Formats: sequence, C-alpha cells, structure tokens
Amino acid sequence: MQKEFDHKLASDYNIKFNNEALLDEAFTQASYVNEHPDEDLKFYERLEFLGDAVYQLVVSDYIFKRYPEMPQGRLTRLRAAMVNRHSFSRFARECHFDKYIRLGKGEEKAGARNRDSLLCDIFESFIGAVYLDQGIETVKNFCRLVIFPKLDEGWFDEFFDHKTELQEAIQVNGPVDINYELLDEDGPDNDRQFKVAVLVDNQELGVGEGHSKKSAEQAAAKAALNKLGIKDQKLQ
Amino acid sequence: MQKEFDHKLASDYNIKFNNEALLDEAFTQASYVNEHPDEDLKFYERLEFLGDAVYQLVVSDYIFKRYPEMPQGRLTRLRAAMVNRHSFSRFARECHFDKYIRLGKGEEKAGARNRDSLLCDIFESFIGAVYLDQGIETVKNFCRLVIFPKLDEGWFDEFFDHKTELQEAIQVNGPVDINYELLDEDGPDNDRQFKVAVLVDNQELGVGEGHSKKSAEQAAAKAALNKLGIKDQKLQ
Repeated sequence: MQKEFDHKLASDYNIKFNNEALLDEAFTQASYVNEHPDEDLKFYERLEFLGDAVYQLVVSDYIFKRYPEMPQGRLTRLRAAMVNRHSFSRFARECHFDKYIRLGKGEEKAGARNRDSLLCDIFESFIGAVYLDQGIETVKNFCRLVIFPKLDEGWFDEFFDHKTELQEAIQVNGPVDINYELLDEDGPDNDRQFKVAVLVDNQELGVGEGHSKKSAEQAAAKAALNKLGIKDQKLQ
Repeated sequence: MQKEFDHKLASDYNIKFNNEALLDEAFTQASYVNEHPDEDLKFYERLEFLGDAVYQLVVSDYIFKRYPEMPQGRLTRLRAAMVNRHSFSRFARECHFDKYIRLGKGEEKAGARNRDSLLCDIFESFIGAVYLDQGIETVKNFCRLVIFPKLDEGWFDEFFDHKTELQEAIQVNGPVDINYELLDEDGPDNDRQFKVAVLVDNQELGVGEGHSKKSAEQAAAKAALNKLGIKDQKLQ
C-alpha cells in the first residue's frame, strides 16, 4: 500500500517525501493509533491544523494574483468557495486518498473511510505534511495540478449566488424589474424537474433547469449572465 | 512622513521595501483615494485579504513547531487567541501604525485613525504588503520581533479559560470538588475590586483579584495552575 501510494504521489503529483513518517502521520486516524499502542504512532490532527493554514494561503495567493482587479469582497467569497470542508472532501476523493487512510477496525466497520468529515481532515493533513516535508512551493505545484483547474471547470459555481450576481450586474444604472417564472414542472416526486425563466423588464433573458425551483432559478440567472457576456463576472 | 516611516521600518524591523507603492497601498484608506481621483491610488483592502492568510500561516507554523506535543485543540485555541481582530489592533498600536494611515478628511474628523477596526485592517494589509514585496521569511522575522514575544508576556492569557484549564488539570484522576469563594469586595462602584479564592477539596489553592467576580475567578484559577507547577499547561 505504502509503495503504491509513493508511486502515485510521484507519478501524479511529482511529490517524493523525504520523511515518510510524516506521510504516515497524515493518513493515520486516532483509532488506528489506539489499536497499535506499541508502535509509537502519531495521528493526523496536528498536521490537519497546519495544513488548513497552508492551503488557505496558497489559495489566497493564487486568486490574489490571478485576478488583480478583483475587489476584496469577491476575493473573500471566491476563497470561501475553494476553502471549505465540502470542497476538501471532493478533492480527497478526486485524489483517491480514501484508499490510503489507516483506520481502526471499529471505524472501518462503521464506514469512516467514506465519511466526508474524515476525507476532509485527511486532505488538510496531507497538505500539512507536504508543506513540512517539501515546503510551500510543492504545495503550490500540487494545487496547480489538482485544485486550480477546478476553478475553470466550474466546481465552485454552486457557491456563487448567480441571482445576486445578475441583479448587481444589470442594476448598475438604476432599478430594473427581475422576475423568475416557472415554465414547467415534470417527473416523479423523487426526481422532480423544474424549468424556470428569468425575465428582465418582461424580456426573457435566460432559462434554467434543476431539481428544485431554487436551483432552476440559479441556473436561469447563470444563463442570463452568459447571454449578457458577463460569464466571468465573478472573476473580474 | 513617508521617509520617517521608511526609517522606522528599517531600524525597528529591518524591512526595506523594494516597491514603495505597495507600502502606500497598505496604508491608504478608500476615503483618501476618493479625495484624490487623479492620482490613480489603490486602497488597502486587497492587501488586507492576502495579509490575513499570510499571518494565519506564520502563526500556525510557529506554534506548531514551538509546541511539538500540543494537541490540535489547544493549538487551535492558541491560534484563535493570536489571530483575531482584537489582537491585530493592539499590534498596530504597538507599532504606531496609526500615525501613517492616509485618510480622507471626513474620516479623519470622525476619528477613524484611532478606530480599532481600521487599525486591525491596516495590520493585515501591512503583512500582505511585506509578503508580496519581501516574501514570507520577512513576515516571519517581523513576527519574531513584534508578535511572538507577546506570547511570553501573557498578552493572550485572557483568551485562555483558566477555570476550564484548572478543572481539566486536576480532574484527570477522577472528580474533585472545585469551588470559588468571594473573599473581599471593595472600592467605589465605578472601580469595584473583587478578591476570590479557589478551593480544591476545601483547600485554598490560589487567590485572584479583578474588577469583576468572573475576572477574579480566572485570576485565582491561574494562580492555582502556577502553584501546581502547570503554569504553561496551555502551552504543552
């Protein structure tokens, strides 16, 4: 397992640990330590503490430089979208970190390996271990490979409020009427589909679909922003 | 003013900016920019965004390494004590940053120069500017000179809950009776002084004074921790 993981880190992320014990620590849960009292093991929590701050800086530095005109408020919102526990567990799954966690038997049985909160912790402890062993530049490289491309793939779009975005964008020159109209509602109860149009001064500017009225409205607002050519409004 | 500030940064903190514009930006409030529309000035907010994350990492890195056995929970509490807006404004005052802020006339009249929230922003924007201009090592040096000694001077003690600390420390081997007893109450209404003893299994272990019962109890608990030789319990 260890060798397979070393190989993966080297081939996928160009990371080769000097101190393997740090990598072990990052992927070891307290339950495993408790079951192996003779091995003098450490569990991931301290590295998680450190990794949290490292990742926050690497993301802040990246978006600060990538969007040199973006005001503080938007930077803060974008950072919050990238630095949060929901995103962390997605990153951990994307990197298949779940395979390499060392768990106690009870936790294993309880399904901890697939628990969002654990995956999220492990993502941060991994970042902490890379930082300690390799320095911040290696963390930046990892993020360039794994995290930052997600920005262009729309991973964080759900954290943006497109309705507010649209309102801010079209009301700069004074108040305008914005209404959301339900066009269609279809499908069985457990898989309901909604179709919503956004009307700006009674003119249809975008249509969106979703499993709730709310998500369909967000999709419609996003479509309207695209149509207005302010697709990347959030990133300017 | 600019020259005086440059001199202060060099002599007090060994910092010499390459890009003076960044330093200007860090100390310029929006109100000043608005009053000088022709000068193409920037205000501090983006640097504040960046500095926040830089400072958080520098503190995390420092306490992680200084206290190699401290568990995550305590690290997190200690970081929260050092990384918060109350501390930031104290640091800014300590460094006399208030003197160098560029404000609009209205804000100046309104007393913004002494406003905690502004001083706190400026502390962060200063850190952001040093990081961009000089790199993280210079920020670390600044913190070694200005911030970290405060840890030993007790600046962050008020953020620790000594009563909880004492309880955790003496109840490790089972429940013990802990009581706080008011010994004395004195002074005029606007400057009342309380004196409290902490009794552990009916034995007096510490006495503390304060302007409220609560603060006197905290002081008594701290005295008890000292007596028990676990003065630096919070730091282990």
